[in-house]
This record gives sequence, C-alpha cells and structure tokens, in this order.
Amino acid sequence: MTKQIKAAIGVDLGGTNIKIGIVSSNGKILKKTSIKTEAHQGHEKVIENIKSGIKEILKSNKQKIKGIGIGCPGVINVKKGTVEDPPNIPGWKKVKLGSIIQKEFKIDVCVENDANAAAIGEMIFGAGKKYSSFIMVTLGTGVGGGIVFNKKIFRGEFGAAGEIGHISIDGNGAKCNCGSYGCIEAYIGNQYLKDRVRIELADQPDSKIWELIDNDLVNVSPRIIQNAAEQGDKYAKSIIHNMGVQLGTAFASLSNVLDISTFIIGGGVAGFGKPLFETICKTATARVLTPLSPRVKVIPAKLKNDAGIKGASALVFYSM
Amino acid sequence: MTKQIKAAIGVDLGGTNIKIGIVSSNGKILKKTSIKTEAHQGHEKVIENIKSGIKEILKSNKQKIKGIGIGCPGVINVKKGTVEDPPNIPGWKKVKLGSIIQKEFKIDVCVENDANAAAIGEMIFGAGKKYSSFIMVTLGTGVGGGIVFNKKIFRGEFGAAGEIGHISIDGNGAKCNCGSYGCIEAYIGNQYLKDRVRIELADQPDSKIWELIDNDLVNVSPRIIQNAAEQGDKYAKSIIHNMGVQLGTAFASLSNVLDISTFIIGGGVAGFGKPLFETICKTATARVLTPLSPRVKVIPAKLKNDAGIKGASALVFYSM
Repeated sequence: MTKQIKAAIGVDLGGTNIKIGIVSSNGKILKKTSIKTEAHQGHEKVIENIKSGIKEILKSNKQKIKGIGIGCPGVINVKKGTVEDPPNIPGWKKVKLGSIIQKEFKIDVCVENDANAAAIGEMIFGAGKKYSSFIMVTLGTGVGGGIVFNKKIFRGEFGAAGEIGHISIDGNGAKCNCGSYGCIEAYIGNQYLKDRVRIELADQPDSKIWELIDNDLVNVSPRIIQNAAEQGDKYAKSIIHNMGVQLGTAFASLSNVLDISTFIIGGGVAGFGKPLFETICKTATARVLTPLSPRVKVIPAKLKNDAGIKGASALVFYSM
Repeated sequence: MTKQIKAAIGVDLGGTNIKIGIVSSNGKILKKTSIKTEAHQGHEKVIENIKSGIKEILKSNKQKIKGIGIGCPGVINVKKGTVEDPPNIPGWKKVKLGSIIQKEFKIDVCVENDANAAAIGEMIFGAGKKYSSFIMVTLGTGVGGGIVFNKKIFRGEFGAAGEIGHISIDGNGAKCNCGSYGCIEAYIGNQYLKDRVRIELADQPDSKIWELIDNDLVNVSPRIIQNAAEQGDKYAKSIIHNMGVQLGTAFASLSNVLDISTFIIGGGVAGFGKPLFETICKTATARVLTPLSPRVKVIPAKLKNDAGIKGASALVFYSM
C-alpha cells in the first residue's frame, strides 16, 4: 500500500467552466477535471455541476482530503461561506455554497473571492512564499487584487478589500464600467485594452499588428500585441510601456498608503513579461515616497496553468 | 484631599513650537504650555526644551500621570521609540527620543508619527470613538493620514503606512515635492493651494478674493478663500468644489482598496466646512464600487484646538 498524501480539492468556479482538481500540500495537481458551468440554467444547476465534478474527481481517489476550497468571483462572506451575485453568473443572488457542499461531501469547505484565492495560492505555493506581506494583482478581463499583510489576507470592514483595479490614476480619465473614471482596470483590463487598441490602430498604419491580425480588428488580443512588440513594433511596445507606467503609478499610491512594497503579478497580460515588469518597477520606484523606494519589488506569479485550482485548494491549507 | 484623576502628558513636537499638556482620560486639557522648538540649534537643544517643558507642566501637578505621549513628524519606530529625520527639524537624524524622556522622568513614553497620533486622538477622544475602522485625514501644509482598522493603527510593513496625501489622482498631473505627479497633497496642501490660487487669480479679476487680500497676493490663505466663498464668490466656491472632487476621488480609490468607508477630516482646510464635506461625500459615493457606496461617510474631526496635545496624550490611553 502506498502512503497517503495530504491533499485538498480546489474548485475554480468561472462563468464558463468549473475547473476542479486534487492538489497535494506542496501544490502539485494530482488529478483534474473541467465541466461546463451552465450559468444560464440558474444557480441550482451550477451547484449540481459543482457536486458532480467533485464526485467525479473523488472517484478512485486514494489521498486523504483535508478539505474543499472554492474560489469564485463576487462578494463572499468567508465565515458563512456565502456567495453573493458573482458578476459572471447572472441571477445567482445569495447562495450558501459552503454549507451546501459541506453537507453533500461531509468535508470542510472554504469559499473565497477568486482574487484573494489567487493571493493565497501564491502565498502557500508560489512567489509569495517568502514574503510576509505582498499585493497580488491578476491582470485579465478585470484587474483583481488581494492584499496579504503579515501572512494574512487583509479583508477590510466587510470583506471587500483589495479592489486594486479600481484605483483611479486619472480622476478625469477613461470611463470605467464601475461608474468611476480613470480606474486602472479601464486602461489595463483586457476588453478595455483591446477596444482602445482597435481605435488607435487607425493612426498606426505601419504597425506590425495589422499583419498579425490579418487586417481584421476582431483578432486584436494581448498575445498579438506581445508578438508585435517582440518583433520590435514601436506601437506595440508603446502599449506595453504605457501599461507599465499606469500600473507603476497605481502601485506607488498603494505602497504609500499600505507600506507594502512587494507586488506579484499574474494573469494573461502578465505574459507581456520583462518589458512590462521593468516599466512597472521603474515607475513605482520613482514615484513612491523616498524611504519606500529601495523596497519596491515587482515579480511574476509562479502559479500559471491551473492557478485557479491551485489557489482554491490553497484556501484549505491556509485556513485549516 | 481631592481625588486624583488618571491623566497623561501629551507632547506635540512641531517645527516651531513644542506644545505640552496634561490631559485627563476623558480628553480634557487640565493644564498646558508651549515653548519654542529651536530646531536650528540641533536635536540636543530640542530634547532639552522638551524636558524643560515637561518639568514645567509637572510642577505642582496633583494628577496620577499614566504616561507621556509624543507626537512628531518623520519616520517613527513605535516599538523602539526612535524618531528619524522629522522633515521640519533639520539635522535630527535618528534619535532615541522615547528612552531619553523615559529615563529623565521615569514615566512610560509612547512616541508616534503625528498623523497616526491625530487618528488615535479621534479614536480615543473624538469623532472616531464609535467607529471600529476609519481613515483620518489631516489637511494642512501637508495632507496627513492615519488608517484605523479594527480599533488599531494599520502600520504596514515598516510603520510608514497611511500616506494618504501621496495617492496620485492624476499620473500626468501637478508635480509633487515627493517626486511624483498628481498626489492629492499637490492639489490640497496649503502651500500648493495658495501658490495655485495666486496664479489663477490673474484670470479672475472680479473675484472677491482680490478685495479680501487688499490686492496683495501674499495675503492669499485658506481662510480668505473660505470668506470669499461664504460671500458667494464663484471662483472661491469653485476652488472648494474642486478640492472636494479631488479628495472624493482619492477616497473612492482608498475605499475600494481597503474596504474602509468612514473618513474623518481635520486640520485647517477642513474649516471650508459643509461645501467641502458635501462635495467629498458626493464624489466618493458616486465613484466607489456600488456595494460600498451606501457606507461612505465623511465627517469632521472633533478635536480642534489642541488636537496635537490631545492626540499625543491619547497614545498613552491607547497603548497602555
């Protein structure tokens, strides 16, 4: 008989897919699956799908399961395990997800906001292991954030802290879907970025991006921008540079307010790599108050593929 | 014999004056004095002056002194009681102020950054009493801040957290003395405000401010702007309105990041009163993320005169 490994189940509840995995205490995925969320069929169907996914992954499992961690968007009451109106699952309202899953499987369940789960994932398994305090920023459709202070998530008064994406870097700037202006998300968020590039390309007839998108603006994507920049395209490089300055400006404000100077960046756009990271770091270092300046660090997230599953499973190792 | 009251000594160490008082545990000043700092004569002279001020106030004192609290600008190591390079006392370097004063008087000493002392003063004696979390903002020459979370000062990694004045609300905006751009202090700080108004007045020949300053730009002050606004001067009103929008924008970012939605505002410029407070609140409420919006509160500080002495003495009641 082989020795049992301590493991946890991580559930990454997205608007399109539910990704589920068994993860060892050192962050290795032992087994994983993915099923459709079917959000349009209502929250009961979604919960049914989560349950059947967990059942599937538990089939012929031999590890000792310490708990189930669920990461999902929306407002989460961590103590009660309730999820309120996740933005990508319409009509969800307030659901006691934690206790529903706990009852079904008789295993302890932790539910957490996906941005905080990403931060906890980096803290337990990834680039945050060696820092007692850091700010995790996930660059994707939105710009998510999680604040880790003294190895704990800083939640604020009602658990909603960490909305890094909605720091305004220009009070008269770009309109953000949240209703404010100049939010960092309104510059860096995938959709905003693509929309802006599509407009700006009209004035960039020589940009390599045109060739890479087959002259079809629908094909504009962060990956294409990255490819063009790597081929030396000036306009593509300027996009990445501007993003770095914008993020660096927000990070300087954050450091001044929180006296936390380590930033871990994950998500698709983080793939812009060195040019992006260097500009962020240079800008934040120059703009932060002098005593904080030497402490600024901007580093890439370590969890890449399956970061959602790993972050969700990390909730179990973090809380229990 | 009258009953002894529990009291503390509060020392407000400023660049020009050292204000010292004996304060009762319910925040009443029982006795006070003020002496010159004589910062130009070096830190030993400053410490001598603090000592002789405390001696003076202790003369014929009959209260039981629980401790001495010292509020001063600069980087403070609260645990060690050391003060590093206070910006308004040149050549100070790193001084073990806490242990020096403790040795002299054999009374426990707490040393704290003046912005945090102001927050602790409001928490113990003032408008912050009934809130477990709030952000204290002091509008003066600089824009100081202190973050109170769950009845404790949030200090960040190295004790420098709370620099609300250096949130950038426009990455391409006004140059700030800190080296960054668009810091809220570069718009709202007294000196920046006066300098900007002096320039803008050239285009405001009909403003009442001209009369109130006897046509001499040297006389521009927050008080004059307030008087003009109260007399219905459009330009003066627009100054206050813009300040409200700028502060409200910064406060929205802060709430989104910290999930703390109560703001207590003190300092001279807070005298702009209702028009300023209403604009801040309206702007922050409109710009913060929807779930936080109903929670936004912007209220005036309660400690006005002698806020420095009271805040410093509050350190004693807070820590011991």
